[in-house]
Amino acid sequence: MRVVSSIEEMKGLSRGLRKEDKTIAFVPTMGYLHGGHTELIRRAKGLSDVVVVSIFVNPTQFGPKEDYRSYPRDMERDLKICREEGVDVVFTPEAEEMYPEGFSTYVTVEGLSERLCGVSRPGHFRGVTTVVAKLFNIVTPHIALFGLKDYQQQLIIKKMVRELNMDVKIVTVETVRDEDGLALSSRNRYLTDNERKVSRLIPEALKRAEECVKEGVSEASCIIEEMKKVIDRKPEIMVDYIKICHPETLEDVERVEGEVLVAIAAKVGRARLIDNLIIKK
Amino acid sequence: MRVVSSIEEMKGLSRGLRKEDKTIAFVPTMGYLHGGHTELIRRAKGLSDVVVVSIFVNPTQFGPKEDYRSYPRDMERDLKICREEGVDVVFTPEAEEMYPEGFSTYVTVEGLSERLCGVSRPGHFRGVTTVVAKLFNIVTPHIALFGLKDYQQQLIIKKMVRELNMDVKIVTVETVRDEDGLALSSRNRYLTDNERKVSRLIPEALKRAEECVKEGVSEASCIIEEMKKVIDRKPEIMVDYIKICHPETLEDVERVEGEVLVAIAAKVGRARLIDNLIIKK
Repeated sequence: MRVVSSIEEMKGLSRGLRKEDKTIAFVPTMGYLHGGHTELIRRAKGLSDVVVVSIFVNPTQFGPKEDYRSYPRDMERDLKICREEGVDVVFTPEAEEMYPEGFSTYVTVEGLSERLCGVSRPGHFRGVTTVVAKLFNIVTPHIALFGLKDYQQQLIIKKMVRELNMDVKIVTVETVRDEDGLALSSRNRYLTDNERKVSRLIPEALKRAEECVKEGVSEASCIIEEMKKVIDRKPEIMVDYIKICHPETLEDVERVEGEVLVAIAAKVGRARLIDNLIIKK
Repeated sequence: MRVVSSIEEMKGLSRGLRKEDKTIAFVPTMGYLHGGHTELIRRAKGLSDVVVVSIFVNPTQFGPKEDYRSYPRDMERDLKICREEGVDVVFTPEAEEMYPEGFSTYVTVEGLSERLCGVSRPGHFRGVTTVVAKLFNIVTPHIALFGLKDYQQQLIIKKMVRELNMDVKIVTVETVRDEDGLALSSRNRYLTDNERKVSRLIPEALKRAEECVKEGVSEASCIIEEMKKVIDRKPEIMVDYIKICHPETLEDVERVEGEVLVAIAAKVGRARLIDNLIIKK
């Protein structure tokens, strides 16, 4: 396994792989890898000759009051996991090289970026699309893999790729969950034992929405009320939003018809957790 | 010469050329080709195996009250010129395919895009960087050529390429001028005979700035005054700006020291004309 931190070296490596006609699959991460990441890596291995994983805690996607500094990092552990999973190249650029002084070029997907998490995290998705565009240009993957836990993110990235005519196929992978249903996330690390227990109500609320639809409820406001009842069992969960929306436009729907996205964001202790479920009627 | 209008076809063609290890040089244009464009094409031919010229009047770089609809177009004449110049591929996408309904992804170079022409043309450079990013992803050139008449544009594109880690070398080519000094531009087409004559004062004002510096004047405000005296000889010229600025940051300088950019934008009749000169002290 090769570990590369220089942008030029990574570019040269990708160029060489392309010359040799190797298919490159790319898994961009912020490190502190968990089972969701390893699932992406396994899928990537099945789809390509060479798997590149980037580990980069991207400063431009954090707000000034967010957890950029405290975001969990453990490069040694991450490299061990990558090695065990048979990753070919780990790209670990430095923030100073990714964003040299005076940096001012941004990629924005307007509209989609302002919904759901975009409301309480202005600028977040601009940071995501900018770093992903940069990483795609450096790694030049044929395929890039993203988890569906970050549903809005993968939707925005797909739109960016399509609209900027990037030559990358985006593959999405189902959310990986712990036994009690909580979606895996590097930020789960922030949770105390009690907060960890409480957090399971987040996926439970999503399941409650699914049940409601099965029971024949289709009024979005009623379903959201039912979800709130689940969440409200524990005062430690501070809801940011609970939304039922169109799975492509992310616009609120009044009634569940066809496929909808049920999405939730909440703070539990220091951790801001997100989760979602696609429900079909 | 191949003429391609489908994005997918152009992508396939570029992919094929890259596979054969051909060097692609790219000249993006809005058509209505003149001697400035043919100069770019000639330079491109000397630098590559295959020359691709795009002809696309890009709607997103025009303001709502600007000349998108009336911008001069003559595809037949353009194709003839390209054929004569030995262009290999002409890419002529449709606006509907470049910007499908709901399009909302933009590339912005903040800062530089808001100076000079960015003041009276808000959104203009966002349109330019977005279309150039798209065209680069479609054509996948090794080299792209831009004229220095659009000085601010080439500066912004170089910054975009550098900061988004695009793998394209930007080559700039000196402004081509008519015998009387007027910079070639498709918009010169708008000028009446009298306006055409009057317009030569624009490059004359730039020369006046150069003379001033040679004569030992280095106060920017004094030089601008002298330039205005030249322009004011003809009331048909409505100045948008006359600026003396740093050639990289485009920030106004108070005194000419080292290299500066002298830039001018003015309306003459229906035409908005721009020109510039780099002056060294």
